[in-house]
Amino acid sequence: MGQAKGKALFGRAQKVIPGGMYGHQSTALQSPSTPQFFSKAEGTYLWDYDGNRYIDLMSGYGPNLFGYAHAEINAAFASQLAEIDTATGPSARIIELAEAYVDQIAHAEWALFCKNGTDATSIALRTARAYRGKRKVVLAKDTYHGAADWCTPFQTGTIGEERSHFIYHEYNNAESLEQAVREAGDDLAGIMLTPIRHEVIVDNGEPTAEYAKCARRLCDDHDALLMIDEVRAGFRLERECSWCRFGVDPDLSMWGKLLANGHPISAVLGSEKARGAASKVYVTGSFWFSAAPMAAALKTLELIQTTDYLERTIDLGLRLREGLDSISKSAGLPISQTGPAQMPLVMFNQENGQRDIPITYAFCEIAVEHGVYFHPFHNMFINAAMTAADIDQILEVADRALRSMPARDAIEINPAARAALESFVAES
Amino acid sequence: MGQAKGKALFGRAQKVIPGGMYGHQSTALQSPSTPQFFSKAEGTYLWDYDGNRYIDLMSGYGPNLFGYAHAEINAAFASQLAEIDTATGPSARIIELAEAYVDQIAHAEWALFCKNGTDATSIALRTARAYRGKRKVVLAKDTYHGAADWCTPFQTGTIGEERSHFIYHEYNNAESLEQAVREAGDDLAGIMLTPIRHEVIVDNGEPTAEYAKCARRLCDDHDALLMIDEVRAGFRLERECSWCRFGVDPDLSMWGKLLANGHPISAVLGSEKARGAASKVYVTGSFWFSAAPMAAALKTLELIQTTDYLERTIDLGLRLREGLDSISKSAGLPISQTGPAQMPLVMFNQENGQRDIPITYAFCEIAVEHGVYFHPFHNMFINAAMTAADIDQILEVADRALRSMPARDAIEINPAARAALESFVAES
Repeated sequence: MGQAKGKALFGRAQKVIPGGMYGHQSTALQSPSTPQFFSKAEGTYLWDYDGNRYIDLMSGYGPNLFGYAHAEINAAFASQLAEIDTATGPSARIIELAEAYVDQIAHAEWALFCKNGTDATSIALRTARAYRGKRKVVLAKDTYHGAADWCTPFQTGTIGEERSHFIYHEYNNAESLEQAVREAGDDLAGIMLTPIRHEVIVDNGEPTAEYAKCARRLCDDHDALLMIDEVRAGFRLERECSWCRFGVDPDLSMWGKLLANGHPISAVLGSEKARGAASKVYVTGSFWFSAAPMAAALKTLELIQTTDYLERTIDLGLRLREGLDSISKSAGLPISQTGPAQMPLVMFNQENGQRDIPITYAFCEIAVEHGVYFHPFHNMFINAAMTAADIDQILEVADRALRSMPARDAIEINPAARAALESFVAES
Repeated sequence: MGQAKGKALFGRAQKVIPGGMYGHQSTALQSPSTPQFFSKAEGTYLWDYDGNRYIDLMSGYGPNLFGYAHAEINAAFASQLAEIDTATGPSARIIELAEAYVDQIAHAEWALFCKNGTDATSIALRTARAYRGKRKVVLAKDTYHGAADWCTPFQTGTIGEERSHFIYHEYNNAESLEQAVREAGDDLAGIMLTPIRHEVIVDNGEPTAEYAKCARRLCDDHDALLMIDEVRAGFRLERECSWCRFGVDPDLSMWGKLLANGHPISAVLGSEKARGAASKVYVTGSFWFSAAPMAAALKTLELIQTTDYLERTIDLGLRLREGLDSISKSAGLPISQTGPAQMPLVMFNQENGQRDIPITYAFCEIAVEHGVYFHPFHNMFINAAMTAADIDQILEVADRALRSMPARDAIEINPAARAALESFVAES
């Protein structure tokens, strides 16, 4: 597997991009063979600049739901682009898309569209504070809601004051949530939660129904808004808001990533109760009203409604999970597979239950060398273009990886990545 | 001119979008015939849903530089979209685009790409604070840098604390700037300024060279970063940073809107001095690394380098300005035309020099009824698809408008718009 062109590109990138790459798609903490740049994407496959093909388990960190370069979705996009996209006003697509979400999502009576997931969570935050003029917002400790000053996980360059009125509690701990709400006193604006735990490194997974209902009840009791951040998990667990399984509807839900299968759009959906507050906040962006991503989102929603994408991604995720379980057992390397099967976080553990960073890292290195893009610490996303044959090929590579695994002490990790990952583990 | 379909759309929108529309493209403060939704955009023309065509002087509030649905730019976009767009990593377009800006812009040694203009200004803010760990940032009073909590002009739903470390001064007043820097003491992170004054309602225009040089000197003296917010004016005044005319280079420049002629991308460009700080901040977004808008940006930059778009938009702007001047003189209605000719702010004044909101409003209403989208309080943008014939048609409509202008006291303005606009005038 050649890498010369990829390495040369990274050399060029280091001159004109700080650190060579930035943000969540930087491969600085991944294994050394992980390609940073890709030349082609189709279905569930990526190609790097040296002509290597990868089965991509990351799905663009979420946006790819129905397959890269999806013909039908891109046709809807292109046909809209030919008529009108970014202009002095929106097209009727903004109304149709809002109507479509209002039809699809029980709590939604209105929609606002934006670009980044962080735009959506920031708008929700501001709407909750505008609702009754209260300031305190309860968040779960270490939960990712985006990279704005108020929520970025790495706070270099922020002042701290933008977090003045957050109260943090332990996710999926109703008692801790109640305590946080008590601390807010009569200044509670809302509670913002992700529908599942899906942070890096730590075990992912669903909260209890009790916890979800507790959040709902606390917001009702205090005339505050319940905000559910569906940016990562939305439409990957349900065709509705994720907590419909608990019978819990939020006041605001925030969406992004897969809404238009990779075309840039995010959204805030809201209940009647929150409409007045949403109409009072001033939020905007140069490209928020562009029509082409909305046309792509309408087509994506139609596919969400009319295909078995959800059942298929769950089945494929279970096939992967069961296969990896059995492979790791026969290799005698304890594996940790958490989160929903279709959003798997896969890491290896030491005998003492702690994350085994070197083994996980070496596993991903072998996988990527054999054409499988596997992530060492971030949850992955099964997309609907993947097939059982893809999963079987992933399992074959995984089997080979675990059979040829170097001894733990012989695994070399670049020191920066090791330090960063171990500090994650220590904090979690 | 029919409007039935547009009104029906707005009725539908009011049910599913807070207030019927939100953000800078809401027409709530414009005259009643202003269309909210458009079905088609081409060159410098927009069509509403009733089949009316408009010469669009807003250019999408900035993004449209070379004409809507530009064939060459959209071809570059489409051809990239077919290969790879949003994926698990960026394509080589991110490197090529960063290299192209580094080649084009004197101070730029690196680039970061994002989506919203507000992303770019927020990244610059964080980079300046990361640079030496200082917190105070000097801004100009009432300057627009975006709609995030720290900068939104309408603060409903924000907590205030996110503005803890800003010091405000009077734009284009070197003494006031020096005083603000003194107030920052030894905690100055940087100074963030727009290259020209381009706020709504108030006279727009360039600062003095003395002011620009003072900002540069103060940043040098205090080892702080000079940030120039080019989101609105970038590439509309110069093919370089706007302050090249004063011989002043910033440490960080922030760009957006027209970079890809309407495709969503914004950027922070930075000097060597700021590279280390930029590599320490954690900023990211789901669609920031998408390749297709970068391909469109490369083509747009090529057109910026190889066409006379700049000279033409200036010439067309001057033709408009001179024509409006002479028409208003013969009508005896004092007109205020400020800002660069290619980014004109056009308002009518009363005899006492104050803004004449009713006359401006009535003028825009007649213009829009005759197929000219004229803005009553926001600067407009001449695009390079406009022709002298378009300008002459605008002038013909303007002449007709001023000849048929109702008496000032007979002009009806919806009370909400009048109150909002008058409060702007009072504040400015």
